Amino acid sequence: MITPALIIQKKRDGKELSSKEIHSFIKGILTGDVADYQATAFLMAVYFKGMTLDETVALTEAMLHSGERYDLSHIPGAKVDKHSTGGVGDKVSLILAPLASACGVKVPMMSGRGLGHTGGTLDKLESITGFDVRLPREKFEDILSEVGAAMIGQSEKIAPADKKLYALRDVTGTVECIPLIVASILSKKAAEGTEGLVLDVKVGNGAFMKSKEDAKKLARTLTSVAKKMGLKCRALLTNMDQPLGYAVGNSLEVLECIEIMKNERCAHPASGKPQADLTSCDLKELTIHLCAHMVELAGITRDLTSARKLAHAKLADGSAWNVFHKMVEAHGGEVEQILDPRKLPFSKRHVKWTAKKRGYITAMDTEMLGRILVEMGGGRKKASDSVDPRVGMVFHKKLGAKVKTGETIATVYAPDKRDLKDLEEMFDLAIEIRSVRKPVPKLIYDTMG
Amino acid sequence: MITPALIIQKKRDGKELSSKEIHSFIKGILTGDVADYQATAFLMAVYFKGMTLDETVALTEAMLHSGERYDLSHIPGAKVDKHSTGGVGDKVSLILAPLASACGVKVPMMSGRGLGHTGGTLDKLESITGFDVRLPREKFEDILSEVGAAMIGQSEKIAPADKKLYALRDVTGTVECIPLIVASILSKKAAEGTEGLVLDVKVGNGAFMKSKEDAKKLARTLTSVAKKMGLKCRALLTNMDQPLGYAVGNSLEVLECIEIMKNERCAHPASGKPQADLTSCDLKELTIHLCAHMVELAGITRDLTSARKLAHAKLADGSAWNVFHKMVEAHGGEVEQILDPRKLPFSKRHVKWTAKKRGYITAMDTEMLGRILVEMGGGRKKASDSVDPRVGMVFHKKLGAKVKTGETIATVYAPDKRDLKDLEEMFDLAIEIRSVRKPVPKLIYDTMG
Repeated sequence: MITPALIIQKKRDGKELSSKEIHSFIKGILTGDVADYQATAFLMAVYFKGMTLDETVALTEAMLHSGERYDLSHIPGAKVDKHSTGGVGDKVSLILAPLASACGVKVPMMSGRGLGHTGGTLDKLESITGFDVRLPREKFEDILSEVGAAMIGQSEKIAPADKKLYALRDVTGTVECIPLIVASILSKKAAEGTEGLVLDVKVGNGAFMKSKEDAKKLARTLTSVAKKMGLKCRALLTNMDQPLGYAVGNSLEVLECIEIMKNERCAHPASGKPQADLTSCDLKELTIHLCAHMVELAGITRDLTSARKLAHAKLADGSAWNVFHKMVEAHGGEVEQILDPRKLPFSKRHVKWTAKKRGYITAMDTEMLGRILVEMGGGRKKASDSVDPRVGMVFHKKLGAKVKTGETIATVYAPDKRDLKDLEEMFDLAIEIRSVRKPVPKLIYDTMG
Repeated sequence: MITPALIIQKKRDGKELSSKEIHSFIKGILTGDVADYQATAFLMAVYFKGMTLDETVALTEAMLHSGERYDLSHIPGAKVDKHSTGGVGDKVSLILAPLASACGVKVPMMSGRGLGHTGGTLDKLESITGFDVRLPREKFEDILSEVGAAMIGQSEKIAPADKKLYALRDVTGTVECIPLIVASILSKKAAEGTEGLVLDVKVGNGAFMKSKEDAKKLARTLTSVAKKMGLKCRALLTNMDQPLGYAVGNSLEVLECIEIMKNERCAHPASGKPQADLTSCDLKELTIHLCAHMVELAGITRDLTSARKLAHAKLADGSAWNVFHKMVEAHGGEVEQILDPRKLPFSKRHVKWTAKKRGYITAMDTEMLGRILVEMGGGRKKASDSVDPRVGMVFHKKLGAKVKTGETIATVYAPDKRDLKDLEEMFDLAIEIRSVRKPVPKLIYDTMG
């Protein structure tokens, strides 16, 4: 055991820690030899002094080795997963896992829950009654093997050091720190037994990374560390200056995914009919693009162009939908609900939030939109909160759209009783309408790795 | 209650905290609303981002208000105390408190214990059998009133927030941070009811501040904050590149102080006779100088020159000795031991450490000399250790002295059984002997406030 105070001081003084020192410190956090109050002083020192690539690799490995590691090598096929750094309306995984599976990739996906203004895949899946994301390892492997895609939460046994550190970072102002973010993401991904990893690094006012520069640095560190750990890796820098797709809110997002996988419009509870005015273009494009990278990393096609074509085809011919259907069934979800999404749990209180003036939508404060969902009960302020799948917003207008005064921007699936006045005020603040149109930001900025 | 995580983030981002935020955070540390792991993240953020003068004042006040505050206004006379930032052989307080009292100052001194390589006044006083440094408040005030000087430890009720924070800083690499040092020192000094404060800021290889620049910054912050808190204050920058005086070790240091106050040489246990070759010049000069500043701050003389004269006179005419005698008696100490210092507890194992070559002593690694004392049991590695008053070193040669090969540099009062080989090796490393003399550093570099 290396004295924890000396390790903290060394980092504080900006010196590079040895792999042995980092392993000793992380092990100590779990055994209690390193007190929580020493862990947080260390985290703050890392916040200020950063970590070299070697240090970040050592930290990731130490966190990985703090828990169980799945070995999926007995399952045939290349295993590739995707991870997103989080955004608003980011429901990509629900389509992507089945789609990549339909293309021949094995997708062992371990996802997280929503926290703060961002949503989580597990919460979305749990909108489907009975969908069990807490499967034992054997069952997870069975589904992966038979369906080609399985989607579960991280078990308690995976990277317990990360769980502990994350909880501490959350209350000590040390969340926004690249080496800590990288180690947290990659220790869990390396533990799930995947061989390849496609990273969707979000940048914009609804992402954790608000600047392209920071997001690029994060993406570069993620791919470098992942490769040093033996993972095939690709990172995409994608825009999060508006919600992805038209839906924000758990059941609504499942509905949007079903429409894309089924290649048809479904009736919406608020109107009782399909909504021709809604667009999921960005969501669909991003999903296909991410899928293409997964397919290419898996070695299924020779290049990205063929991979894109394959992804397009497997979405268009209903193969992705078939996998999704099987996966929901295998996870114990009510198949009835995905066959007729009106059977998903939806709020019956529908409200329209409208444009207060005419013009073009030139900006959407996406983080604030995420916070409105949290306020309605559709997200979490703290990890122990429960989530209401019924509430959410359907966006009829997004960036670049022309609006008239009084025209509906969003249909709100509101909580039964809550006064919505303050939320509508937040919404009006979040939607910027100007008389002159602004260019809509690109969806995909960059690809690395 | 302001959310602790937000206060940490604000400091992390280098923004100035309001007095309200600082008070809320410090209060929370004691009530438990701020977890220890949040306190240490905050301390590390302060380490990197510093604090403005206003923030440091607010922190000091918050720590002061966390506990009891003595009111000594009913005791006539100007109350002035001294604080040293700590060194090796720094026994000044034992002479200074009686001397300043003899000059007419009331000295309500609350001191600390030795930790790491530095010694502590309380440990030195406790070499005198029965000397009680844990007196109740009333008794402390009685002695102060009647004798003019009382020397006790900090009660548990004084600045409990400082105790808690100091314990956390000690194990999280956040000790060396000026605003935290300043708040720690001044919150306790402000609590003891003194009106004036003379600070002895040590600089050199045996001090916490190794560079003059850092020490100056500390001294400047100390005087600025003290003044903002309504304390009259003066800070001296003094050298700690060698032990102060000839003795290092608790009973030996008391012996050296007695010699100075009695103005006579006393018999030393190792030789059985007075030692004419030893010099306490630097100790005596520094004590008189600090006393002069206390006298001037107390308004007893008009200027420093008259104050120095008064201090000289009161040391020479035995007045300081008389006060010391009364003080020891009032504190329950064995007066016999100070009348005949051979009765103090001394180790009977005496060893001579000699020069391994001829030349001049050009450097003394004073911190290492302090660590040798700790290794012999005369100091503490951790706060809960007990201290052996019997051991120590008497320096026959100090900086600038000419030595022959084999000539005694120090007489060691050694622990009964410990093998001294490694300690003598440390000693040889600590004493640099070169053929060309180097100038001896000045004793007093600067005065501020």
